[in-house]
Amino acid sequence: MSANLFGQRLQMMSFGESHGVAYGVVIDGFPGNVPIDTKLIQKSLDRRRPGAQSYTSARNEADQIEVLSGIFEGRSLGTPICIIVRNLDQRSQDYKTIKTKPRIGHADDTWKSKFGHADHRGGGRSSGRETLTRVIAGSLAQQLLKKVAPKLKVTVSIDQIGSHKIKCSPDQLPAKIIKLLENAKANGESYGGIASCHITGAPKNLGQPVFHKLKSDLAAAMLSLGATTGFEFGGGFESVGLKGTEFHKSMKSKNYGGIRGGISTGEDIEFRVAFKPTSSIKDTAKKGRHDPCIVPRAAPVIEAMAWFVLANHYLWSKTDQL
Amino acid sequence: MSANLFGQRLQMMSFGESHGVAYGVVIDGFPGNVPIDTKLIQKSLDRRRPGAQSYTSARNEADQIEVLSGIFEGRSLGTPICIIVRNLDQRSQDYKTIKTKPRIGHADDTWKSKFGHADHRGGGRSSGRETLTRVIAGSLAQQLLKKVAPKLKVTVSIDQIGSHKIKCSPDQLPAKIIKLLENAKANGESYGGIASCHITGAPKNLGQPVFHKLKSDLAAAMLSLGATTGFEFGGGFESVGLKGTEFHKSMKSKNYGGIRGGISTGEDIEFRVAFKPTSSIKDTAKKGRHDPCIVPRAAPVIEAMAWFVLANHYLWSKTDQL
Amino acid sequence: MSANLFGQRLQMMSFGESHGVAYGVVIDGFPGNVPIDTKLIQKSLDRRRPGAQSYTSARNEADQIEVLSGIFEGRSLGTPICIIVRNLDQRSQDYKTIKTKPRIGHADDTWKSKFGHADHRGGGRSSGRETLTRVIAGSLAQQLLKKVAPKLKVTVSIDQIGSHKIKCSPDQLPAKIIKLLENAKANGESYGGIASCHITGAPKNLGQPVFHKLKSDLAAAMLSLGATTGFEFGGGFESVGLKGTEFHKSMKSKNYGGIRGGISTGEDIEFRVAFKPTSSIKDTAKKGRHDPCIVPRAAPVIEAMAWFVLANHYLWSKTDQL
Amino acid sequence: MSANLFGQRLQMMSFGESHGVAYGVVIDGFPGNVPIDTKLIQKSLDRRRPGAQSYTSARNEADQIEVLSGIFEGRSLGTPICIIVRNLDQRSQDYKTIKTKPRIGHADDTWKSKFGHADHRGGGRSSGRETLTRVIAGSLAQQLLKKVAPKLKVTVSIDQIGSHKIKCSPDQLPAKIIKLLENAKANGESYGGIASCHITGAPKNLGQPVFHKLKSDLAAAMLSLGATTGFEFGGGFESVGLKGTEFHKSMKSKNYGGIRGGISTGEDIEFRVAFKPTSSIKDTAKKGRHDPCIVPRAAPVIEAMAWFVLANHYLWSKTDQL
Repeated sequence: MSANLFGQRLQMMSFGESHGVAYGVVIDGFPGNVPIDTKLIQKSLDRRRPGAQSYTSARNEADQIEVLSGIFEGRSLGTPICIIVRNLDQRSQDYKTIKTKPRIGHADDTWKSKFGHADHRGGGRSSGRETLTRVIAGSLAQQLLKKVAPKLKVTVSIDQIGSHKIKCSPDQLPAKIIKLLENAKANGESYGGIASCHITGAPKNLGQPVFHKLKSDLAAAMLSLGATTGFEFGGGFESVGLKGTEFHKSMKSKNYGGIRGGISTGEDIEFRVAFKPTSSIKDTAKKGRHDPCIVPRAAPVIEAMAWFVLANHYLWSKTDQL
Repeated sequence: MSANLFGQRLQMMSFGESHGVAYGVVIDGFPGNVPIDTKLIQKSLDRRRPGAQSYTSARNEADQIEVLSGIFEGRSLGTPICIIVRNLDQRSQDYKTIKTKPRIGHADDTWKSKFGHADHRGGGRSSGRETLTRVIAGSLAQQLLKKVAPKLKVTVSIDQIGSHKIKCSPDQLPAKIIKLLENAKANGESYGGIASCHITGAPKNLGQPVFHKLKSDLAAAMLSLGATTGFEFGGGFESVGLKGTEFHKSMKSKNYGGIRGGISTGEDIEFRVAFKPTSSIKDTAKKGRHDPCIVPRAAPVIEAMAWFVLANHYLWSKTDQL
Repeated sequence: MSANLFGQRLQMMSFGESHGVAYGVVIDGFPGNVPIDTKLIQKSLDRRRPGAQSYTSARNEADQIEVLSGIFEGRSLGTPICIIVRNLDQRSQDYKTIKTKPRIGHADDTWKSKFGHADHRGGGRSSGRETLTRVIAGSLAQQLLKKVAPKLKVTVSIDQIGSHKIKCSPDQLPAKIIKLLENAKANGESYGGIASCHITGAPKNLGQPVFHKLKSDLAAAMLSLGATTGFEFGGGFESVGLKGTEFHKSMKSKNYGGIRGGISTGEDIEFRVAFKPTSSIKDTAKKGRHDPCIVPRAAPVIEAMAWFVLANHYLWSKTDQL
Repeated sequence: MSANLFGQRLQMMSFGESHGVAYGVVIDGFPGNVPIDTKLIQKSLDRRRPGAQSYTSARNEADQIEVLSGIFEGRSLGTPICIIVRNLDQRSQDYKTIKTKPRIGHADDTWKSKFGHADHRGGGRSSGRETLTRVIAGSLAQQLLKKVAPKLKVTVSIDQIGSHKIKCSPDQLPAKIIKLLENAKANGESYGGIASCHITGAPKNLGQPVFHKLKSDLAAAMLSLGATTGFEFGGGFESVGLKGTEFHKSMKSKNYGGIRGGISTGEDIEFRVAFKPTSSIKDTAKKGRHDPCIVPRAAPVIEAMAWFVLANHYLWSKTDQL
């Protein structure tokens, strides 16, 4: 399995660097003859675009998808689907100073150490911009599942920004949070947060024994995202304090998070992801683009990865029995 | 990638069911000519054995390893290493009732639903006993790393049992916790907990871009364990409340957990794993064996999986540059 | 993908060395609830056993299979199936001289060079005995396909032994060939040969685009066998001399070998495999066991690998469309 | 492992259809900091371009590579390298008739049957044009190996066209063969052929036990090419008639083809590939482009795949020992 490949039955190979020509993704294992609406993919991308809100980074790219292969006359060909998005607004001169001075909390130096060579204009593969390949893949996964699990829904909400516990849609932050983030943006401050993901209508039998339990693959998917620091599902860290007789009240307890023995039960699946404060603060952020909190923009990416994991396991489950 | 295979460069294929003939593991990709002391493997296994304490399950199996291949005259052959452990104490008559009535919180029914057939004597692949294959693989990984990273240490401690926040070695629980667990065992009660893992002396450059970040692979490894419900590293869920200027105090902040951009920095790596209360409570536990809290016994398994992930990434890093 | 793993949907991990404790194989991806008759596996193994004929090696091992996991009450569990065969007749003292002097045509020295350590008693993983893991896996694959493609048949015949072109079943060699091989065995001589494999009743749509064409996977399977030196299917090397208008007479031409664009068409599949003369000749063979021609014993192994490739692609084809 | 992915340590994901927007390839696992000259990649591509000779297809495309990722300032970044080539000359109107009538010997119908949907303009993934992704990948592999195995050379020559046994460079066909092919092109006739590949200066220890023997991976690589029908190495099919005492004359016999026990020995590696007559004959070829013999154009593709297999195994061998 390669470093930039995700999934076992449905697979995505992601490529591209922040200051390179384009980001892109190749989806292999996508069944043939599935109706695909590329406008829906574009729409998903538009959701994660920066610059849409007062409190997000000003980097403003059209992020137009370009389908290179795998789709013909509105249906999948069963061949690998490659979709790219060009990097238009590269503004690399802003990043020149990085060449000599690593930015705090960023990964510029670790990548350079590892591979012996790095794009000194910053970010590279570890840029948040890489996640647009996930969103493209997730939209395709969603369109695949639409046919076989029409009631399946994946929704992300925000549970916490900084120290503020909230419960809102990532598209409708409360006024006080917007204020907080606008101030942060102005002052070179940043905040972390927690997002929760709710999946309803998922087929049962998703997940594989032992090393590809659904919880394990969801965790791997979420922790493959840049600023994440934690994953929990069902009862998670909080329910640790419960006695067994409280935790295991019924076979349908929410504490199970819709997964037992690593396999989806048909109940609602629920997991939460922690994000650290973005690294782009103060001095280091001055000249680059600055997102004071990544959580609202991460929401569509979490959804996308969840769709992808579900689609991967759906295809996998087709060989559980003859 | 198959369902029962873990790792990309060092790979373990695990097999065996709770009431079958044997558990075992095949390790592929293990370099040749590495000194291997099979007594160390046995010793690791002995640590996770149930029945060693007053508060653990009474299932008492010798768990003797049997090396079938891959090791000759104390050194690895570069061929797959297969090691098995026979199931001696199968006591299957105790489990007969399970055939008709699924046990609460267990996975008997989900597996049956998925594969159309299950061992009605219970547990199957989702038994905690499967983890002995991890411990064997982890011991081999540790011996591999001994030569190339002699200062590398992996230690697990327990941070919480039930609602009790503690900080102790899994082998030396405080008296009050032992009491708690003895009572739980007697009364069919159970508790969850949190274990933390500290890794010192790890080489830097471990972890691969994007989908095999070290954090992602550690999360997948830990969430592949039976009763786990959460994973966090570095600052984790708690540090979400910090401002960026607090979180990112220095390039060596503990909040990074020794990983930046998904890659080990050479600093200490630290992560935590949440476990739910064991499912074997009350009625359902009556006739099976009962562990009132899995966390102490999970400690050597967490260590083993951490060793394995590190060894996998160590081998992987050998091709980062020519 | 690991060195000792074969297949993408149905996967076999093979382990064991010639003078180790046991050979074995773990089959992962085998669907649940498939009826499995372990006596059929044993029967397949008996076919490839040496010592059954006057002209084969005298190494006589019972080769009793031992099922360690994955099968319960005559049906597959959906969990990995591990089956081992112990090495009883190790006679390692016969091989002592090898320690200092590599045997001509054998791989003892290449393996030692590669892994820095080798079993000086000879053979190791490159022993023909490793193929028993293939036969076990092939028998399981055959039982899987019995349910879904009941008319599917795989038959191997021998087309050539040494310079003698024949056409016979591997179990019924002509008298003159038996004589030839008996003489060869007595005199430390050896012969190569060609086996052909005929597959009838195969489902269409087996094979995947580009890198897992059915012909490519069959070639890889056959060339993974010890003494093989060539693979051809359909018209093969001989039909190279035909003009296109001769070669492409009809869509069902035998020249296509039942495969077009890498995918099975439902027509008969036919391929041929070349084997070099065995390396165990004269001096080097004196003390080891001596097979003057591997082709008759290879026949059941070719069949087994063909079954396995077909089963792998059958499972794979289940996700061609939703 | 996915259908369109080749390699275990160095991996290429190929995408694109004959009448789609572009062909492309993503190379993952390419080490960082390797000097890369993209002009050499373009040069390799130019070699396989049709329309260069009087006897090849008239489809004339610039086939300009476009590097999307993975290379920065003349060196690899350790990130996935994506390179695409746009399909400029799509001329799809010529292919309209294919929609209703499958072309003899082509795979249009098998792909349609498999995936339920196909590009009726013909070719799709099974077009010979797909091989440009191999040539790109092979050039990168060659540049990787230049640093570590500077004496390594891969050369393809043509041994047979139709029934004519020759021995020439693919770039310098004898006059009588050029005449033969010009006539064939005019008359809608076609020919097959045999190409042989000679590898000198290869490192020893390339190849992995059992399922990734060097011979097995080379066979898989060659049989993944469109019109191939056979593969043999060393003595191949012809040496089958030799007695063992003739075949095994010395440890460095050419009959071994530079591979023993599946592993390169440092001796010259030699293998041969059979190609069937191209399918584009007579009526079916009228409106499409017509190549009367694919062998000369296949030569650079064989070289490319050989380079790729060698580079993959070179990287793999880095973990043979610690």
